[in-house]
Amino acid sequence: MNQVVEQERKSGEETGAVRAAMRVLGANARRAARALARADTAAKNLALARIAARIREASAELVAANARDLAHARESGRDAAFVDRLTLGAKSIEQMAAGLEQVALLPDPVGALSERNTRPSGIEVARMRVPIGVIGIIYESRPNVTADAAGLCIKSGNACILRGGSEAIHSNQAIARCVRDGLADAGLPEDAVQVVATPDRAAVGELITMPEFVDVIVPRGGKDLISRLMRESRIPMIKHLDGVCHVYIDDSADPEMALRIADNAKTQRYGTCNTMETLLVAEGVAPGLLPRIAATYRAKGVEMRGDEATRRLVADAKPATEEDYYTEWLAPVVSIRVVPGLDAAIEHIAKYGSQHTDAIITEDRARAARFLREVDSASVMVNASTRFADGFEFGLGAEIGISTDKLHARGPVGLEGLTSQKFIVIGHGEVRS
Amino acid sequence: MNQVVEQERKSGEETGAVRAAMRVLGANARRAARALARADTAAKNLALARIAARIREASAELVAANARDLAHARESGRDAAFVDRLTLGAKSIEQMAAGLEQVALLPDPVGALSERNTRPSGIEVARMRVPIGVIGIIYESRPNVTADAAGLCIKSGNACILRGGSEAIHSNQAIARCVRDGLADAGLPEDAVQVVATPDRAAVGELITMPEFVDVIVPRGGKDLISRLMRESRIPMIKHLDGVCHVYIDDSADPEMALRIADNAKTQRYGTCNTMETLLVAEGVAPGLLPRIAATYRAKGVEMRGDEATRRLVADAKPATEEDYYTEWLAPVVSIRVVPGLDAAIEHIAKYGSQHTDAIITEDRARAARFLREVDSASVMVNASTRFADGFEFGLGAEIGISTDKLHARGPVGLEGLTSQKFIVIGHGEVRS
Repeated sequence: MNQVVEQERKSGEETGAVRAAMRVLGANARRAARALARADTAAKNLALARIAARIREASAELVAANARDLAHARESGRDAAFVDRLTLGAKSIEQMAAGLEQVALLPDPVGALSERNTRPSGIEVARMRVPIGVIGIIYESRPNVTADAAGLCIKSGNACILRGGSEAIHSNQAIARCVRDGLADAGLPEDAVQVVATPDRAAVGELITMPEFVDVIVPRGGKDLISRLMRESRIPMIKHLDGVCHVYIDDSADPEMALRIADNAKTQRYGTCNTMETLLVAEGVAPGLLPRIAATYRAKGVEMRGDEATRRLVADAKPATEEDYYTEWLAPVVSIRVVPGLDAAIEHIAKYGSQHTDAIITEDRARAARFLREVDSASVMVNASTRFADGFEFGLGAEIGISTDKLHARGPVGLEGLTSQKFIVIGHGEVRS
Repeated sequence: MNQVVEQERKSGEETGAVRAAMRVLGANARRAARALARADTAAKNLALARIAARIREASAELVAANARDLAHARESGRDAAFVDRLTLGAKSIEQMAAGLEQVALLPDPVGALSERNTRPSGIEVARMRVPIGVIGIIYESRPNVTADAAGLCIKSGNACILRGGSEAIHSNQAIARCVRDGLADAGLPEDAVQVVATPDRAAVGELITMPEFVDVIVPRGGKDLISRLMRESRIPMIKHLDGVCHVYIDDSADPEMALRIADNAKTQRYGTCNTMETLLVAEGVAPGLLPRIAATYRAKGVEMRGDEATRRLVADAKPATEEDYYTEWLAPVVSIRVVPGLDAAIEHIAKYGSQHTDAIITEDRARAARFLREVDSASVMVNASTRFADGFEFGLGAEIGISTDKLHARGPVGLEGLTSQKFIVIGHGEVRS
């Protein structure tokens, strides 16, 4: 047998082994999902409390497991930001535990009835909120996602299969041990939460192509990960690809408010998906406002890229290319464009935006209403910073992610986004005629 | 050039031409969708009224176009049931027009606000219902779907691309003419409704793989069509594959009610997806009830296939195979099984069911509650015939289809299922700190 064939055979065997292992996880998850769907609120909340306790008790083990991952990351020459995301210290361990206790305090969405009505036939119809089933979650270096995602899935009655980054595998396994022990403490099936044990990348390929075992995939990670999953997944996803968010300053904007929001939306945090990437300014107010806004950006070291009208007002702005307006900077860089007014702003957002979060600053109620209605994004705002597009800020209590899709969940996704609604009918012997 | 190569080249060119044509439809639909999303309720209702008027006025042309399809169907040796489904007579033309007028009377879901709340930060958050965008609808021989589906999409503010069966192409084109004229009468873009003009099957392949132009596919047709689309579609679908519906008669059932529902659920119509296919009977009541139910089925010519316990009570029942319990008969055939009680019934439904519609007949409130909660189907019923699982019967006003999926829409899908919800935020200059 030549080498290539031997390699292929071996890789085929490995793929087969990964597939078999993933299908076992899948079948376990399906079984556990049925039990969890039936669990009452008290049992689920007890599990969350017990997991929090287990995490606090296992603090030393978690730090030790994390140390192995950190050592490997440093050996592999990972940068400081990467090591920082990967680190599990006393503070982040306490945050995981406290987060689980907060999820326990949220209302249980499962079983809630709505839209009850009695039909002319006599039957009573309502909708009952139910878990989705099995959630596959794929994430990168932050190990706290293991506890956070498990907590949201448990509370919403879903089983989950978690696939963290191979760089955090020891940390994730240690956290998973706490989660599974806590589930067992509460009399719930341990397999309600399973963490993929192999670092083999083929595991992801399997997870996203077994619709018989997994109902929805929630990818949490960078654009490369999500683009790959979008090409290959055979299972629906709750996801967003880009966060090219806009703030449009209308002619009628309150200037001080415009200044404050243009600053906050760009500079409060650079790396988040709800950070503004492009500032649109109505030409009527640009001469008065843009130089002042630019001064703020300049003072904070934000690079400005503008169209010609912007550059006439802001001498140190670089020329913006077409591509710049499509770009999610995730960095101290901002694209700027002066536009004739509301219509042009809406057109710009429709063309260059990513349907994530867009805001208008205006004192004109009619224009605010048009912006809210006509901008087709997951979150649309009037006179507020785009940075508010977040599950906690919106009052969902927690967030598994943000969706820019239109089917199922849109915008920040909390517990309700991890559920579905079935119809229930109470009859009294009615038949159709 | 040899013949095979020439054929391939030609077929490649044709595929290229179909692709180009479908992409033109897609781009048109995207443009029209933006205009329709902005249209107010009055304009959409006017369009529906004008389309109804145009259909009534064009009655003779519709019958003539349909005659061409009917002639072709007869020449191709299609059976009477097929010809019947394809026929567009005075009555079905009036039904199409009246159906559009009924959709005009339904409340407009677009723009509705819900879940308003003011957050500690000061921002007001709510959800606004918005159209999905572009809906692709793929259907088979009934030409009335062209008008029905167009009406629901227009009212919900969505553009649509309709792909009917090639056997109804002349009928569908004639109806499309009325729809587009009616849209123009109301000042709305004609391209909000486009009917694929080519009978080439490659058009379907294109429609389901252009996510940049189409947001959701609604397939209405048999299992073969839907299985194919499930394999090939790159776009989410609102669909159901099987309707293996169950009625479980509990120990505590009212016997007369059980008899009435077991009869109605099976025999009121054989070919519908919400028809019961398997009857489960608790062993305590089987001896008293099953022979009486069997007498009803026998009288109506329904073939019975049962397990051993059933056959001891119903001598002419054939032995049921494992496969029979997975089968959607869509015919005067019923699978029957005697089960120990509620738990076994729930297990049977979980294993053999298709998560469509399942009912329990019981006077025991606790068992009814368990069945409602634990049976994981789109519609779950107590003391009512499965035949009620229908958009009109549930009060949705109309129905584009039934979904057995759990994401987005579940059960009968009306106007609301063709919409999404975005978050809107009204601030007063708030920024994040």
